[in-house]
Amino acid sequence: MSDDDAVLAANRAFYRAFAERDMAAMEALWAAHAPVACIHPGWDALIGRAAVLASWRDILTQPTPIACRAERVLRVGDSACVICHETIGDPRDGVLIATNLFVREADGWRMVHHQAGGVAAAALAPPAPETPPGATRH
Amino acid sequence: MSDDDAVLAANRAFYRAFAERDMAAMEALWAAHAPVACIHPGWDALIGRAAVLASWRDILTQPTPIACRAERVLRVGDSACVICHETIGDPRDGVLIATNLFVREADGWRMVHHQAGGVAAAALAPPAPETPPGATRH
Repeated sequence: MSDDDAVLAANRAFYRAFAERDMAAMEALWAAHAPVACIHPGWDALIGRAAVLASWRDILTQPTPIACRAERVLRVGDSACVICHETIGDPRDGVLIATNLFVREADGWRMVHHQAGGVAAAALAPPAPETPPGATRH
Repeated sequence: MSDDDAVLAANRAFYRAFAERDMAAMEALWAAHAPVACIHPGWDALIGRAAVLASWRDILTQPTPIACRAERVLRVGDSACVICHETIGDPRDGVLIATNLFVREADGWRMVHHQAGGVAAAALAPPAPETPPGATRH
């Protein structure tokens, strides 16, 4: 398996743990040694493994039919970033976009950061950078 | 200068280029060799240096009184993640939270990814993970 494929497998494991409310898998997935953080949509940042896993423990008490698609990997050595769309139920109800960071630890690729936020419906057509959706940009 | 300080300096250089509409500085800041991406608030992902810089070229045509604060660095070797708040004008008008990724290239720390999204006002008090702002989470 290539490094990029291994990163994608870790990314899929993250969404599987999320959708299946598998807290043990979620705990195993997050890095044990590297510093970690997490930014849920609309939240402030959570810093550190204890705070991040506490948030997941809470989130996984409720069902979330989350699915991931359109993954893209940007990898430099032992660090990788996966950018992907997230849908919760019907994609017509909205799409989130996520940055998921992984580092290679002794036992494989482990998550160190996750940020997700909404994508404006108008932005889901292939973007033309010269005509951005101004109302939603910086 | 420590590695973390050098990463923070690169992060400040990003916001300075943004606020001062300095496209040359922005071009110099983004990685020349590593793969890059950018997710502006509400946008879909832009992948690749050409698309990312085209978006900045457009954004920098308009003034944006952006400022950065509450930076935190998570670094693993030659890759680093800075998480910080962004304000545009009066902080009471809202706060964004950003993930900025950097890698060490031959001539210093260079940006490889930026994602920013809004923080719900209620989330800006120190978060208690057990009582998250449920309406805005995944």
